[in-house]
Amino acid sequence: MIRHVVMFQFHDDVTAEQIAEFGAGLSAMVPQVPGIVAYEHGPDLGVNPGNFDYVVTADFGSIDDYKIYRDHPVHRAVIERFTGPLVAGRSAVQFSLGD
Amino acid sequence: MIRHVVMFQFHDDVTAEQIAEFGAGLSAMVPQVPGIVAYEHGPDLGVNPGNFDYVVTADFGSIDDYKIYRDHPVHRAVIERFTGPLVAGRSAVQFSLGD
Repeated sequence: MIRHVVMFQFHDDVTAEQIAEFGAGLSAMVPQVPGIVAYEHGPDLGVNPGNFDYVVTADFGSIDDYKIYRDHPVHRAVIERFTGPLVAGRSAVQFSLGD
Repeated sequence: MIRHVVMFQFHDDVTAEQIAEFGAGLSAMVPQVPGIVAYEHGPDLGVNPGNFDYVVTADFGSIDDYKIYRDHPVHRAVIERFTGPLVAGRSAVQFSLGD
């Protein structure tokens, strides 16, 4: 099993409504993409200063399943819709669970 | 339930041995800190260019339990031991699971 993790920093002028739309877009995408074992996402809770603004963690049975998600047209459409208006910075890791 | 996620970029001269020591340090820490529901960590698998180098995802029953971990002396000792020699960049988010 592998976990894909991606974090986003949003532009300063991004609104709570835009962030909610982004979250709804992610949730609507999940049932349309095969191979997703678990999918969690949400905005930073504001516990610590200096954090990024949003994170996705997604679990897959294999790297190949992750790549199906990565390259799936429904996923690419969500990226195209939200990345430009919202995302100022991004960091990502894919790693093996259970090490 | 909340999930704490933190990603690290390592300095260019960090060795595979140092990364393995960091992972072992994290694994040894987990049973010494109360309130950790799940703890996953590992190096980036190299699937995508431009990724960060290492990630931790840790689940807690509450923000208060996360803060016990964040401030626990055994955790702080791991941070002190590895952050200086290894870590060039860091990004973090805490978020609610099941949104």
